[in-house]
Amino acid sequence: MSTKPCTYCNAESVYYRHYSGEYLCSRCFTRSVQRKVARTISRYSMIKHGDRVCVAVSGGKDSLSLLHILSKSARRHGNELVAITIDEGITGYRDESLKIAKEFTSMLGVEHAILSYRELFGNTLEEALKVRDEKAISMSACSICGTFRRKAIDSAAKVVGADVIATAHNLDDMLQTFIINISAGDVERIAWMYPEPVEYANGLRKVKPLLEVYEHEIAFYALINDIPFQSEQCPYMNEGMRSSIREFLNALEQRHPGIKYNMLRTILKVSKVLRDNLEFKRYRCVVCSRECSNASGVCSSCMLTMMLGDGGSSSSSNSSSNSNSSNNKVRKDNYIIDE
Amino acid sequence: MSTKPCTYCNAESVYYRHYSGEYLCSRCFTRSVQRKVARTISRYSMIKHGDRVCVAVSGGKDSLSLLHILSKSARRHGNELVAITIDEGITGYRDESLKIAKEFTSMLGVEHAILSYRELFGNTLEEALKVRDEKAISMSACSICGTFRRKAIDSAAKVVGADVIATAHNLDDMLQTFIINISAGDVERIAWMYPEPVEYANGLRKVKPLLEVYEHEIAFYALINDIPFQSEQCPYMNEGMRSSIREFLNALEQRHPGIKYNMLRTILKVSKVLRDNLEFKRYRCVVCSRECSNASGVCSSCMLTMMLGDGGSSSSSNSSSNSNSSNNKVRKDNYIIDE
Repeated sequence: MSTKPCTYCNAESVYYRHYSGEYLCSRCFTRSVQRKVARTISRYSMIKHGDRVCVAVSGGKDSLSLLHILSKSARRHGNELVAITIDEGITGYRDESLKIAKEFTSMLGVEHAILSYRELFGNTLEEALKVRDEKAISMSACSICGTFRRKAIDSAAKVVGADVIATAHNLDDMLQTFIINISAGDVERIAWMYPEPVEYANGLRKVKPLLEVYEHEIAFYALINDIPFQSEQCPYMNEGMRSSIREFLNALEQRHPGIKYNMLRTILKVSKVLRDNLEFKRYRCVVCSRECSNASGVCSSCMLTMMLGDGGSSSSSNSSSNSNSSNNKVRKDNYIIDE
Repeated sequence: MSTKPCTYCNAESVYYRHYSGEYLCSRCFTRSVQRKVARTISRYSMIKHGDRVCVAVSGGKDSLSLLHILSKSARRHGNELVAITIDEGITGYRDESLKIAKEFTSMLGVEHAILSYRELFGNTLEEALKVRDEKAISMSACSICGTFRRKAIDSAAKVVGADVIATAHNLDDMLQTFIINISAGDVERIAWMYPEPVEYANGLRKVKPLLEVYEHEIAFYALINDIPFQSEQCPYMNEGMRSSIREFLNALEQRHPGIKYNMLRTILKVSKVLRDNLEFKRYRCVVCSRECSNASGVCSSCMLTMMLGDGGSSSSSNSSSNSNSSNNKVRKDNYIIDE
């Protein structure tokens, strides 16, 4: 509880925003986060009027908050929302989050689709990790899971006939990813961080509406809006580089409120110059026809499936069709979120 | 003392290089650092045959090591070396370093020039800081000192008739500066980090031959080559953001040997794209005629001098001439450092 009343409506404040000096009541805080997301969507033309928007929902605070925010405005913008959850097959952990995701989407009246690694790739994550250990493949659980998840989300979005995939990456995720890309020498990935969506060969766009919102503000949004979220941490959670980058950035923000936001703005400027001036070659995977950046002609997910000795299932996603992609509207809205 | 013999000559090793797995004896370590510096100079065409090279020598390990390395090769490349030291006027601290710098340059037989803030700007740093406190100007000692030092080095280089100014910024400095520039939203400064020197309006170039050498390797180079260096720390040393960035990067390097070097490579790629594709407006300071990026037409140093209430002395550096700049050679060497 803060000591001063809400800067805007004089009600009891529940939040002090260090970087701006604002005291906010529950209602004004909620509105401020929603407005920021709306501005981000407008600024980068993320969602068009009439788009069918597929929200990747893990069951965590970020993705459920994103769904909550978008559900406030979908009707106004002629958007249909559909939530998708990817079941990696992690005993205990995924069960809890699936339950939460099911209940929350049902409460919001949002269509919900679940796709599993087993259906898409022939193996659950746990089975894939067993094979990895047997074959002594030196990849972390997070790398394997991430590679499969990106493809699984693409496939799920096609199955549900979406135009846009919205993921819940927040401001902190963006900064961590930037430093990881700098460490990995990956200039192309820095260029792809620029949030103006490009259309993939399969007609889909990917957007990150939460990219300008601090992680701790999303957590607070979830808390005060009674959004349930998963308490369990993923048992394979990589406590490696991303965690130490997170701690470093949090310490910096504590001493210099607003510095993370400044960093994001610079990173976006840099990635824009890179996006505009570098040439990127895109290839089509010879196994599953998905667009990829691997000059070898096999996408990272199919490559991994082959390494794990299960090459037959990766093209199963191929059979689904993006029935809705031809209905894309080009109308650009100023994105507004209803209260 | 390492447990294995030198990877190259089988002599007793004194250093284990984590990121490469090499064990190095004193001689092979010294050569490896010198070769890296020579490669950096060649790669970015930093020093031309016949250049008069002004080395900014503070009295610390980095600048004295740089002078030591360049003194090995100056004759071969037809370069004249001249060391300059800027006396900010910090009681105790600067006295020790001036003594060390004098003795070391004399031992190497390198010409040595000393210029003071008082001569150039009318005030010592200590006097300037008093004025800052009286006028409640919110600038850190490091910001004030850095602003004056950059101009003082430019002025000193003109006084000694140099073609190139070599400063001892190392790999760690480069990474810290990058993160600071990201925090400060300074895309233009990131572009200027690219080490290929551009000629300033006054005909000078600025180069950083140590930019690809880890800070701790320079310290070890100084140690095993009996290079004396200052033990005192600057009493105004800013333990702020730069220190926490240094700690974070050191912790990262400890867990992922070589990661700092990867980061540098990416930063250089990024800064090259920015340098090639952004437009930079350069102005000439109406007070001292120095080239600057301030659209106001007054350079940051003259601006600061005015703020501190001493506008008369900033143009004193104007009277010196860059007598040697017309003798620039365009011959490009592969830079080699003699043993």
